[in-house]
Amino acid sequence: MDKLILRSDDNGVCILTLNSPGTINALSEGMLTTLSKVLDDIAVDRSVKAVILRSAGNHFCAGHNLKEMTERRQDADGGFQYFQDLFATCSAMMLRVVRLPQPVIAEVKGIATAAGCQLVASCDLAIASNEAKFATSGVNIGLFCSTPMVALSRNISRKLAMEMLLLGEFLPAARVAEMGLINRTVAQEGLEDASMEMARIIADKSSAAIKVGKRAFYEQLQMPLEDAYTFAGRVMAQNMMARDAAAGIGAFTRKESMPEWTGE
Amino acid sequence: MDKLILRSDDNGVCILTLNSPGTINALSEGMLTTLSKVLDDIAVDRSVKAVILRSAGNHFCAGHNLKEMTERRQDADGGFQYFQDLFATCSAMMLRVVRLPQPVIAEVKGIATAAGCQLVASCDLAIASNEAKFATSGVNIGLFCSTPMVALSRNISRKLAMEMLLLGEFLPAARVAEMGLINRTVAQEGLEDASMEMARIIADKSSAAIKVGKRAFYEQLQMPLEDAYTFAGRVMAQNMMARDAAAGIGAFTRKESMPEWTGE
Amino acid sequence: MDKLILRSDDNGVCILTLNSPGTINALSEGMLTTLSKVLDDIAVDRSVKAVILRSAGNHFCAGHNLKEMTERRQDADGGFQYFQDLFATCSAMMLRVVRLPQPVIAEVKGIATAAGCQLVASCDLAIASNEAKFATSGVNIGLFCSTPMVALSRNISRKLAMEMLLLGEFLPAARVAEMGLINRTVAQEGLEDASMEMARIIADKSSAAIKVGKRAFYEQLQMPLEDAYTFAGRVMAQNMMARDAAAGIGAFTRKESMPEWTGE
Repeated sequence: MDKLILRSDDNGVCILTLNSPGTINALSEGMLTTLSKVLDDIAVDRSVKAVILRSAGNHFCAGHNLKEMTERRQDADGGFQYFQDLFATCSAMMLRVVRLPQPVIAEVKGIATAAGCQLVASCDLAIASNEAKFATSGVNIGLFCSTPMVALSRNISRKLAMEMLLLGEFLPAARVAEMGLINRTVAQEGLEDASMEMARIIADKSSAAIKVGKRAFYEQLQMPLEDAYTFAGRVMAQNMMARDAAAGIGAFTRKESMPEWTGE
Repeated sequence: MDKLILRSDDNGVCILTLNSPGTINALSEGMLTTLSKVLDDIAVDRSVKAVILRSAGNHFCAGHNLKEMTERRQDADGGFQYFQDLFATCSAMMLRVVRLPQPVIAEVKGIATAAGCQLVASCDLAIASNEAKFATSGVNIGLFCSTPMVALSRNISRKLAMEMLLLGEFLPAARVAEMGLINRTVAQEGLEDASMEMARIIADKSSAAIKVGKRAFYEQLQMPLEDAYTFAGRVMAQNMMARDAAAGIGAFTRKESMPEWTGE
Repeated sequence: MDKLILRSDDNGVCILTLNSPGTINALSEGMLTTLSKVLDDIAVDRSVKAVILRSAGNHFCAGHNLKEMTERRQDADGGFQYFQDLFATCSAMMLRVVRLPQPVIAEVKGIATAAGCQLVASCDLAIASNEAKFATSGVNIGLFCSTPMVALSRNISRKLAMEMLLLGEFLPAARVAEMGLINRTVAQEGLEDASMEMARIIADKSSAAIKVGKRAFYEQLQMPLEDAYTFAGRVMAQNMMARDAAAGIGAFTRKESMPEWTGE
């Protein structure tokens, strides 16, 4: 039980649990490395159709491990190279979430702060206890949440992102749901059921379609409109040729129930 | 009455009605070609100041015609070239809406799914019955809504777009209004009046100003901030030299009522 | 009292008051020049930690001075060069707000129209009386709000931006808050206290962190995701080396209260 990430698989749904409640699941070096490794495993694991990112203890994640970072101020360069590498490792982990073929659902209770809030923003979907609170609070201790804002500012309006980044205050789940950072809020006691239900809906679809679609989603977002259409049209024509699409569309036009998906 | 698109003009407001209720107004080849042709006509028709996109029957539009597409699986290449051409044709139609000099208002009742939902997202404005429902449901049959997501993801937050694309569920009008996909909801019985009122407000303005503004809107969106300002400043200085602007601003500064607009 | 901009400094919070109530604080040539000059002064004034943009009279700002502009139609070129220069000057002022090292809070009462609404959109944060109204109403007089839309369309959804730009109607504060143009609404009588409270929260933080973070925010927004992370990671590592960050993080890990910030 001393593993930083617990993994449990349930019929296509992979639940990853951030398991360092004593540090409020801080994204320490160890946590980042472990999580990156697990994500790499999942990326090539065809049995996994959807991922839930859960947390042990009362909170989701409090961001970087400031104690661990502070110790590196003893380095010859005051820790600069270490910090740069650490943020690069952290960003690479966030990008792994974005690039994972399977959708990732953040399941948030308690607090999600700084890089913890960024992790929520980096997931494809997010569901939170209505008692959860979100902050990019680095500004309160002199360290602006610059990497968290990359994900945050791509999820919510500029004014709200700036409010979180400049004021460093906690916002309730209802407020960030309203603004688009998370998909919905539920009562704390129903949180795990709600995220599992969402994951199950995804796991019951063709993983071939989901994989193609998720990747294309983030790629086309960065293109001008006309290029995005050229790209997406090609993606969709290829999707038409997939075995699952042929079977699914065929069943649909014949008013039959959906086939067993092959993931191809 | 066998026309796929009905057109009726009312004093500057052009109402286009998707007229294939038997297919839930599917964007078949014929529908796409007809709609594209009509949009091309309107683009050079100076009598049209605003367009309403309405639907015959109980629903707005259910997206592509899957039956028609499935038949092409008999082609030598399994339909691949046909599908690619079809999505290109569809994307070109969506771009016609965006590039049309006149604003287009989607008037939505019943369901708007897949490319039907994309059509709503592609319009400049949208108004819906509060009983309308929206979905990008291709994922349910193995075909991810990759072209619809191009328009969808430029209208709403990433998390909500992903929710629609990955879960494939219907969202009520109130929810997508809250997130920005549509401008407002009204009672079903007031829908046509509400879209006509909106169109009338636009039609009563200078079509010269509207045309210049709509085009500049989508162009500047794709530029970095400083470039966007350089571009928009030039556009606005040119707008100042238009006959309508001179007359309108002159009347405003003299506290007179607005002139008859010349559209120049 | 004939100054177009009043400046008052209160312990790190600089209050700038648009002071031409007789013109509804029109962004005349004089107003633009004066405001630009004041912003340039503040940019290098290390005593200023946060800026409030307030208005004299009952309204925030009604946009450009159309009377002044109309007079230039007498120019040999009909005013074209003048208009182009004026919009360039105005855009440069808006960019000064965005680039100012200190956060700027728009404090909005009454109406904020056209370039006045753009000014709200250009500020980092905005707080409004719940009686305030917002419009990009140029379209009503034949002059589409093309430069205002640059800022507007980067703050709210496309559909709502188009609604404001095409219909030219006033929207209540509650509606634009819901859509992200402003951060919050308060009762008119509590407006100045509310913006001061927000400014005070910012002024009490490390100005070094704030400065670095605000600049990085707008820069990374214009980058593809991976580039944004590379950039932000470097920014954050440099922020770690700042005196304030070392002191603040040190105090935090030792569970001490925050230090006096040096701004370095």
